[in-house]
Amino acid sequence: MSTTIRPATRADIPQILRLIRALAAYERAPEAVTASEAGLERDGFGANPFYFCLMAEYDGQVAGYAIYFFNYSTWVGPGIYLEDIFVEPELRGRGIGKALLERVAAIAVEKGCQRLQWAVLDWNTPAIEFYRAMGAEFLDEWRNVRISGEALKGLAVHAGGASAP
Amino acid sequence: MSTTIRPATRADIPQILRLIRALAAYERAPEAVTASEAGLERDGFGANPFYFCLMAEYDGQVAGYAIYFFNYSTWVGPGIYLEDIFVEPELRGRGIGKALLERVAAIAVEKGCQRLQWAVLDWNTPAIEFYRAMGAEFLDEWRNVRISGEALKGLAVHAGGASAP
Repeated sequence: MSTTIRPATRADIPQILRLIRALAAYERAPEAVTASEAGLERDGFGANPFYFCLMAEYDGQVAGYAIYFFNYSTWVGPGIYLEDIFVEPELRGRGIGKALLERVAAIAVEKGCQRLQWAVLDWNTPAIEFYRAMGAEFLDEWRNVRISGEALKGLAVHAGGASAP
Repeated sequence: MSTTIRPATRADIPQILRLIRALAAYERAPEAVTASEAGLERDGFGANPFYFCLMAEYDGQVAGYAIYFFNYSTWVGPGIYLEDIFVEPELRGRGIGKALLERVAAIAVEKGCQRLQWAVLDWNTPAIEFYRAMGAEFLDEWRNVRISGEALKGLAVHAGGASAP
């Protein structure tokens, strides 16, 4: 029984999309996924990818994945943001999630990043305990804010316009 | 009295570093900034920049800045993450922060991004009200998690290693 972590290739895209949907269902938002295979290929496998993906295999079968990108702290410089990490429910408890996180941490150190950061749902106690056990800190003083949809477009249309007198 | 928003150039780096330090002091973490002019130039003004910076000028003088980068949602695709936004305290109340945010929103829409996201300290009530007024939502179900320093290095060294028998 062995776990292998490797970079994803274009051939993994159908499995990646399946796993993205499985994670969204676990996060109680299955309808939120609008991603497509074409979009995942365009965004992750071109010249300037928006994201990077690692696949976890257990005994040669896809068992999970991690998706990350580089972020930037004006205080300490480049870092890695872990957007998704997921292991098939029936394969948990075998260290596969830890192996994915270790590989992402190794990439962060190799690239000179000072931090690896991500977000967890406040009701996801197993994940919170898992992260705490490996030395993670929780930045609970910070609230995440988002503008999207019509509010984003409404804000955008005013850009550069002169103020009314 | 007029506000201008423009992309930063290398010549702005000393002012950017000054503003980064002013924001950190406002956020009660002045000692957290290890950034240098050389690092800001390397990370923001090379071939594949880690961040992008906008400068706000008011009557021709630097009045604030915004720093952002592209992130990625596996649910909806590319987005913009606003890492820093700051206006000189003595120049607030003139719409400069709003002009910065509008420009970032316009860039997001132009680049096909679905979301503009950032974080705010939970005690920063003026900022929270400002964001709420422009249609932002608060993702309070999510906790931010970070591994850095020795914990990050400790996690990294196990990557890819065989488990002890």
